[in-house]
Amino acid sequence: MIQKLISKIQETGAPVVAGLDPMLKFIPEHVKQKAYGEYGETLEGAAEAIWQFNKEIIDHIYDLIPAVKPQVAMYEQFGIEGMKVFKKTVDYCREKDLVVIGDVKRGDIGSTSEAYAIGHLGKVQVGSKAYAGFDEDFITVNPYLGSDGVKPFLEVCRQEKKGIFLIVKTSNPSSGEFQDRLIDGRPLYEIVGEKVAEWGETLMGDSYSYVGAVVGATYPEMGKVLRRIMPKAYILVPGYGAQGGKGADLVHFFNEDGLGAIINSSRGIIAAYQQEKYAKFGADCFGDAARAAVEDMRADIASALEGRSGIN
Amino acid sequence: MIQKLISKIQETGAPVVAGLDPMLKFIPEHVKQKAYGEYGETLEGAAEAIWQFNKEIIDHIYDLIPAVKPQVAMYEQFGIEGMKVFKKTVDYCREKDLVVIGDVKRGDIGSTSEAYAIGHLGKVQVGSKAYAGFDEDFITVNPYLGSDGVKPFLEVCRQEKKGIFLIVKTSNPSSGEFQDRLIDGRPLYEIVGEKVAEWGETLMGDSYSYVGAVVGATYPEMGKVLRRIMPKAYILVPGYGAQGGKGADLVHFFNEDGLGAIINSSRGIIAAYQQEKYAKFGADCFGDAARAAVEDMRADIASALEGRSGIN
Repeated sequence: MIQKLISKIQETGAPVVAGLDPMLKFIPEHVKQKAYGEYGETLEGAAEAIWQFNKEIIDHIYDLIPAVKPQVAMYEQFGIEGMKVFKKTVDYCREKDLVVIGDVKRGDIGSTSEAYAIGHLGKVQVGSKAYAGFDEDFITVNPYLGSDGVKPFLEVCRQEKKGIFLIVKTSNPSSGEFQDRLIDGRPLYEIVGEKVAEWGETLMGDSYSYVGAVVGATYPEMGKVLRRIMPKAYILVPGYGAQGGKGADLVHFFNEDGLGAIINSSRGIIAAYQQEKYAKFGADCFGDAARAAVEDMRADIASALEGRSGIN
Repeated sequence: MIQKLISKIQETGAPVVAGLDPMLKFIPEHVKQKAYGEYGETLEGAAEAIWQFNKEIIDHIYDLIPAVKPQVAMYEQFGIEGMKVFKKTVDYCREKDLVVIGDVKRGDIGSTSEAYAIGHLGKVQVGSKAYAGFDEDFITVNPYLGSDGVKPFLEVCRQEKKGIFLIVKTSNPSSGEFQDRLIDGRPLYEIVGEKVAEWGETLMGDSYSYVGAVVGATYPEMGKVLRRIMPKAYILVPGYGAQGGKGADLVHFFNEDGLGAIINSSRGIIAAYQQEKYAKFGADCFGDAARAAVEDMRADIASALEGRSGIN
């Protein structure tokens, strides 16, 4: 699956992942009203609005990008109905040949991590039959519980040829509270990064590992160091756009081969029509606004990468 | 809800939480065969087997204990059908007046943490209506992303009078890889523990905080230190029984008032009938075996607490 991700990044020229985090406030009024008209102001109604919104966005951008990253929390908050539309979204994106990164940040120990891995990446055995639960291609994983929390994910990835992105350094302001604390003179995120490299070596694709890392766009200097520590890890970079990360900040996350990073934007794409820059599309054409935002983001990153020789 | 938890611990004399982690291998053959007979070897069939198993266990122990802790991963692995039976289990336990601790180990940043908090502890707004998604009383939360990942959970807890248990020191062998690393001469878990105490002060019940901590039974010496660092935090202690923690190890997790800790056992209770000690009940009477295991566990902890003056 890491090979497919890389091929699709090369085909599209866009190391871009669209974050499918459909908060109700991002969904145009006409989409919500139609859904509520059909199902009422209910969890089913909210789920239908999210589904119609997602579908329109996906239909407008699937040919431009390699991957999507649905944030499960935005679905889970609607209970079972929300989880159903999460699954429907994952399935639809896979039908459209997009790589699906489930942003689930799961992580536990032993058999519990194994159950998460099975539910999101693998197949669960029921008597003589096996079934996929949510069936993403990659998921994000929290490493705080250490190797025996991470290894069950690696086992399922090995069987299924799927991958994980481990949380190393997050994009939020207080991420440093624990992640930046110094251990033998080095921040915790570097220690975690070293483990990611170590775990990743046990599960290599052709040139990159099935084990990637999440490093926030808002900390480009740390990205530079982590790039060196984890040379074979794909870095999933959130925080572009809405959280303040800019194209020029991103070059440090890429390797010299122009690969090794994939940049996420969520509301910057899916709620583009709410920005002044794309207001001309109007709420009716929110899908076209999302497409324009993806094209601009691709150009921003390409231009930053072209200019990188002056930066590195 | 922390008051309710404490009252129920006092009423039952059992600082015990039963971990409802229904792996299929724990479920007696006759329960599975009946469910598969009705729904086939399908996800629905597995979910039905889990539900019948849980219900029987709960019916046999609900009057002895204050709380249950369903591990969501064990349900999530069966996809949507699994999540439905998770919700059904949560609802049933609440009907039985049990405090429900959702072991979900969620955690993210800002609006994403807020969405998890809403989904598991709060209510989501759909137009003019509000709905509870999964509606547990407490959940476990991963703190690795720092304050702005945790505070959205605190906000929802404040509104709903519910609580969280933050992962501080886990019971697994490799938990030390990151959690024990020294920062200014002190292990990371202590630094996290201090933050738990700080967050907890902003959300106090009468004598204990709505913000608790998870500290593994397998590390009693660390429990002693953490007990001091977080005097007002309820400590949820996994790792008793199957993972090697013993009654005598647990006294350090309690305060002098005999409160402050609640001990989890999962397979030790729900799969008791598979142990030699309870084999006499047989697979047919797995509920009675679970009840006997709870009674023994309560006695083990009580006797350890009675003998504590000699230990501290």
